[in-house]
Parts: sequence; C-alpha cells; structure tokens
Amino acid sequence: MTDFREDGAAALEWTARYLERVGELPVLAQVKPGELSAQLPAAAPEQPESFADVLRDLDELLLPAFTNWQSPRFFSYFAVTSSEPAILAELIAAALNQVAIVWRASPASTELELRVVDWVRQLLGLPEGWHGHIEDTASTSTLAALIAARHVTGRDVVLCSEHAHSSVEKGARMLGMNLVKVAAADDLGMVVRGRSFDEVACVVATVGTTSFASVDPVRALAERTRAAGAWLHVDAAYAGSAWICTEERWSQDGVELADSLVVNPHKWLMLPMDCSLLWTSRPEQFREAFSLVPEYLRTPEDAFALSEYGPALGRRFRSLKLWAVLRCFGAEGLRSIQREHIRLAKLFAGWVDEDPAWELVAPQRFSLVVFRRHGTDEENEAIVQRANASGEIFLSHTKLDGRYVLRLAIGNVRTTEDDVRRAWEVLNR
Amino acid sequence: MTDFREDGAAALEWTARYLERVGELPVLAQVKPGELSAQLPAAAPEQPESFADVLRDLDELLLPAFTNWQSPRFFSYFAVTSSEPAILAELIAAALNQVAIVWRASPASTELELRVVDWVRQLLGLPEGWHGHIEDTASTSTLAALIAARHVTGRDVVLCSEHAHSSVEKGARMLGMNLVKVAAADDLGMVVRGRSFDEVACVVATVGTTSFASVDPVRALAERTRAAGAWLHVDAAYAGSAWICTEERWSQDGVELADSLVVNPHKWLMLPMDCSLLWTSRPEQFREAFSLVPEYLRTPEDAFALSEYGPALGRRFRSLKLWAVLRCFGAEGLRSIQREHIRLAKLFAGWVDEDPAWELVAPQRFSLVVFRRHGTDEENEAIVQRANASGEIFLSHTKLDGRYVLRLAIGNVRTTEDDVRRAWEVLNR
Repeated sequence: MTDFREDGAAALEWTARYLERVGELPVLAQVKPGELSAQLPAAAPEQPESFADVLRDLDELLLPAFTNWQSPRFFSYFAVTSSEPAILAELIAAALNQVAIVWRASPASTELELRVVDWVRQLLGLPEGWHGHIEDTASTSTLAALIAARHVTGRDVVLCSEHAHSSVEKGARMLGMNLVKVAAADDLGMVVRGRSFDEVACVVATVGTTSFASVDPVRALAERTRAAGAWLHVDAAYAGSAWICTEERWSQDGVELADSLVVNPHKWLMLPMDCSLLWTSRPEQFREAFSLVPEYLRTPEDAFALSEYGPALGRRFRSLKLWAVLRCFGAEGLRSIQREHIRLAKLFAGWVDEDPAWELVAPQRFSLVVFRRHGTDEENEAIVQRANASGEIFLSHTKLDGRYVLRLAIGNVRTTEDDVRRAWEVLNR
Repeated sequence: MTDFREDGAAALEWTARYLERVGELPVLAQVKPGELSAQLPAAAPEQPESFADVLRDLDELLLPAFTNWQSPRFFSYFAVTSSEPAILAELIAAALNQVAIVWRASPASTELELRVVDWVRQLLGLPEGWHGHIEDTASTSTLAALIAARHVTGRDVVLCSEHAHSSVEKGARMLGMNLVKVAAADDLGMVVRGRSFDEVACVVATVGTTSFASVDPVRALAERTRAAGAWLHVDAAYAGSAWICTEERWSQDGVELADSLVVNPHKWLMLPMDCSLLWTSRPEQFREAFSLVPEYLRTPEDAFALSEYGPALGRRFRSLKLWAVLRCFGAEGLRSIQREHIRLAKLFAGWVDEDPAWELVAPQRFSLVVFRRHGTDEENEAIVQRANASGEIFLSHTKLDGRYVLRLAIGNVRTTEDDVRRAWEVLNR
C-alpha cells in the first residue's frame, strides 16, 4: 500500500458510487455456484500487489457475485440498511482496532457500548435497570440466554413455538439441551395452555417470527414461566426495533417480565452486520454464567468487562456505529423511516387483499407481508424463481401448513412506493 | 448526514491522522472507570445531528479513553496490527453489507471466504483437503470445536493444559462439559503420560499459550487422542500465524493429525478484530454438528452455507479484509514483518538475560518475552503499574508457579528497535 490517503479516497469513491448505483444492479446475484471460485487465483501472491488491483477485482470479479442487500428492491429474509454514518463508523472502528477484552483494553469501547445500548433501551420503552450489551448475531444472543437459563435453573429443557427461529433449535442442540416445539394457534402465536413448565429451563417467546412476523403471547408465557421458576427469553430480533414507534408497542406486552431479550439493530435500525443487542433483567446471574477472569486479564481497576456477559472474550468496537447512527438520524429520523416501511407493507398487503388472484396467508405485521397466489405450490415457487431470476426484485418464501408462501420484507431506507409497486408488477407478470 | 463524500473524506482524514499520530498518544488510556460515561449524554437525541458532531466528540470525549492498540509501544496481551488495506476493506464491507446466511445471500462472501482461507492454509503449510472458515474470535472457534467433538464422540470430558487459554474452560462450562486441567512439565508443555484418554471427548493442545507462548507436545497428544477415539483441537490462535515462516514450523509438529485448528489472523497477520480461522480435517462430521436449514432458508441451488459450520447464522463479510491484506502485503511482506518482530523479541530477551537484575522465566518463543526483575512480586507489579501509568508503554503480566511475571508482546507493524529499547529503559527507570 503506497499511500493511505490516496487508496482511501479511491475506496471511498468506490463505496459512494456503489451506493448510488446499487438500485441499478441485479438484486439477487445472477451467478452459478462455483462461478466466482473459478476466477479466483488458487494461491496468495508472494509479492505485494497494489490496493488499486484489489479495487479492480472487486469490480470485475466480485461485483457480479454480490446479492445487493442495499438495493431498494431487496425484499428477502428481513430487508436491512447499512446507513452512511454506520459505514464511516466501521472505517474508524477498524483503524482504532479497540479490542475490549477487559475495561482497560478499551475504556471507550466498554463505556460507550453500555451507554448507547441504554439509549436504545430507553427508545424501545424497556424497563430501567436492564443490562444490555452487543453480540454479533441473534444466534449468539439466544445461545447466551440458553446458557444463562441452564446455569440459573439447573434444567435442560427449552420450549419454543414451531415458528421460532432455527437458532433456538440450533442453540439447544449445540448445548446438549432438549428442545420441545409447541404448535401454534390459529393466529400463529404459541399456545400456552395444556403443558407443564416445571421441568423447563428456558421458554423462548418470539415477537416477530421470521416466517410470518407473528407474535407469541408473551405476557401469558411470562406468567407461566415465572410460576415454574424457568427463564423467559424473548426473541424480538427483527420486530423489537419497531418499539421505537409507540404505536407498535402492542407487541411488547409482557416483555417487561422477560429474563432476557434480543433485538438486532442490524436488521431494522440502519446498521450493517453485526450488531445484536442482548438485555437481561438479571445481570448478576447472567454474569455468573460467563465470568471467568484468568490471571493475565486481571487488572488493578475495579471495573468489569462486557466479555463477562457472553461467550466471546475478544470484542469488536461495535458501539461506535450504533452511536453514529442514533446521533445522525436522531430518534425521530429512525421512527419516520420505519413508519414509511410499515406504510409500504400495508399498501402492498392491500393490493394482495383486493386482488382475487392472490391472498394474504398471515395477518400483516410490521413491515412484512406473507401471501400466495391461488394455485399450486409449484406455481407459487415458479413465480418466486422467475422474479428473483429477473434481478429486478429479490424475495423469499416459507411454508405454512405445508403450503409454499411468499414473503415480501421491507427494510431498506432507499425503498420507495415505486419499488414496492414494481415488485407487485413483476409478481403479476 | 448531508453528503456521504464530504463526511467520508472527513472520516478518512481523521483516520489517516490517527494512524500518523498514534505513536504520540498514551498507549494505555489514562482515564478512570466511569470518566467517559459521565461525559456522555443520558439519552439519544430526538433530532438528527451532523456527522461532524460525531467526529468532534470522537476527538474530545472518546480519544482520551482509547487504549491505543495501534501504538508501536503496545506490548500487552498479544500486540496486533490493523493494517491499511484491512481498514479500507472494512469500509467497503460495511457498505456492501453482505449477510451470507446462505450461498445465494452472498455468493461472493461465501466463495471468497473459502478461497482466501485456503490461501492461508497453504501459506501455513497445513494439509490439503482441510475445510476452513472464519469465526469472530478464537473463543467461538474453540467453542465450535468442542461442540463438534461432543457430537462425534458422544462424550463430555475436555482435557487441556493448566496453561490453556481461559476460553477452553469457559467453552466447556457453557456447554455443560467437564474440564480436566493437566499440569504442565518444566518446559511448560502439557504432560501426556499417566492419564487415560478413553473417556475424553476433546483434547485441546495449545501452540503458543497466552501466558508464555509455550508449546504443547502436539504429536504425542495427537497419537494418544486418536488411539482413544477422541477429538484433537489445536489452539494456535496467536502462534499459528508464524507458520508462514518455515523456520517457525518446528512448533507445527503433529498439527497435521488434528481434527480442528484455530489460528487468528487478527492477532499476527495485520488484520483488525474480528477474523479467527477455524479448520477441520473432518468437514462432514463438523457440518453435521451445526447444519440446520429451516424452510425459509432453503434455496434451489446445490450450494452450501458457511453458517452450517459454526454457531452463528448471520455472517459478516470478513473475507474481504483478509483478501486485501494477503494481496497488498504478499506472503513475503507478511513474513518479513513477523521476522522483524521475532528479531526484536530475541533482542529484548537478550537484554533481560544479560542483566543480573532481571531474569527470563520462560523460554523465549515467537514474539513474546516473559521475564521478571529479581525481587518481590509487589516490586514487579509496581514496575508494571508505573510503566503503564506513564503512557509510554503498555505491557501485561501473568503468573508462573504463583509468582508475578511480566509479558512483553511484539506484534505491531509500527514497532521499531527504538520502541523496544524505550520499553527496556522505562522498565529500568
């Protein structure tokens, strides 16, 4: 690397142009498995190359193999936004390379993380006194919750809805815990009655399931969980961000009784991967499950490390981007973006509902629409595959009662009413 | 945010200036616990602020609370470098926000990761056919290895040396496995004989322990582990990077027999947090322990996801920075940096060895020196505290046979002979 300022200016310009033109690129990568691999050298170079060479290959080799999550017509999984303040914060965080293994290794990272996660707690209307920190993904946050639950209860059973995220089953399996999946009611919420919670370590309730954005009856689950001495973990990885809008807090009922809660700002709060927030209302017990300070990490200060609240010791400076986003958008800015996404989802759901060829298959919640065309599963699958192959839009699917259904998720700041209209046109072609 | 190019130029200039002046800043943050917190607002702003406001507070509030890991006189824990190509790659990765949950979600991220991790495999001289991917930290990589070991063996015991990293104990505890710590021999390597491996799920051997950079007898452990049907995980998080230099491969003896191996490029291969490489020689069994594909992640392609090889589903585009660093330094560039670090460590060890007031307490290995001044533990602790409080250098400590000993770790690309000489002067003041 010859000159950091020069190469940096080129990298910045590449980034600015990418963000300007991302709406013109195919949303889903139009390459076949192995196509990129075949173009990549088999071995690392012995001698240095220039950063300009890297940027050239980024354009020529990698670009066609990107699925463009920043596209305004990315409607798959949960659509996300990596906003400009967050992108620049990641640049700075990489340069600072704060590795907050203990407080003194980065007082700034440790204290900023505690503070900005508490800012989010307030914005979401969560109880005072909850301890929050940042994990990489909801998979890790939920894994940590299960570990804490087993530590506190001494039990091994995990209970969740059939619609809970796969990370709950994966977490239980990794830990050697026993998962029990409960059938959902007609409203897709988890059924509470008719099952004993006495042997249960952890009940995982979901607010905003991945498939349907459905909401489990958290208050009823919380009451039963408490009575049985079990731990309640709430997975609001996607929908929890919407609690910044008070009109969406109907879905928060009972969450104040949770033992732990995960919400992912990297889903719907304008942040790139990775930023998953994990709160607990029982910080001392949570810490007990993870704290282990070897001699080489002991320090003279009476200060704690956030690594004592989760699986990993090394911690990236993730709070910087959260701080930058909360400040550069302001709470009102974030609310207005979410409200527009919700408005667009409702608009799309209205078109589906009014068209006799289509049907909504789940109540429309937050910024997700779950629907299908009247006809066979194969016909619906073909619609999705044609739409995605066009490069114009990218959406995903799930199954409900064995039937193939389509999911349209809205969550990118660039998405306009025109983009949503175009999705409807593509699907109707 | 008014203009991405304008704010980006300011962020880039801040970053360039930080890297230029980092050698003039105190190495260890000279603040007290809570000092930064007291200056941070209690709540997020309602209305947007400018990115310039964020940069101003970065200078005025956060900067004094950074421990400067990029300083040439950072000698604590394991010294690290976040190099310029990696920093710029993180900027671009944040803008692209590739979330590689499945292959189609980012063919580029999935295929580039496989390829560049294989580039590193070749540079380290590891066997062909090993499957490697990127985790965030060695804590997670080792946790994943323990999960795979339990899955394959059906057993619950983890065996490691008393000098193994705390993440082994933490991992076993999180998983509900039973840890057995084995006393080390005089050379600080794990003792192999006199213990049955028959009930063991996983033996964790360390190449380059955190405290002493000592090396366990991997070959002997591997032979015993295989015979007992257990899993061998090698933790070479720090020292494994040195295998790019063939003269350091004496420490690799027997590693080719391992079932899994972790090496962290974010320690000694010029990368910022987070980039931990996890290889396995048994990819199919490893995948079995983690693979779980729910309906909403099924895709028409016959392609796999790297999330099937570890705990998390969401994956950041970490391979971009690894690709950029390997190309911009070239293998020869990386080797020459490491060789200089090793030369400086040997030089420092020589000064210690020749001075009757000091002694080396462990064989000097790689770029770490472990030593103490003749005198009491309290005197040695006071030396470290005074040195760190000066802001001139930052080093850490550990204990050997109950005695307080000093660690000087070299690993930043900016570190010169003058910096190491200055450390020696500060310690002798």
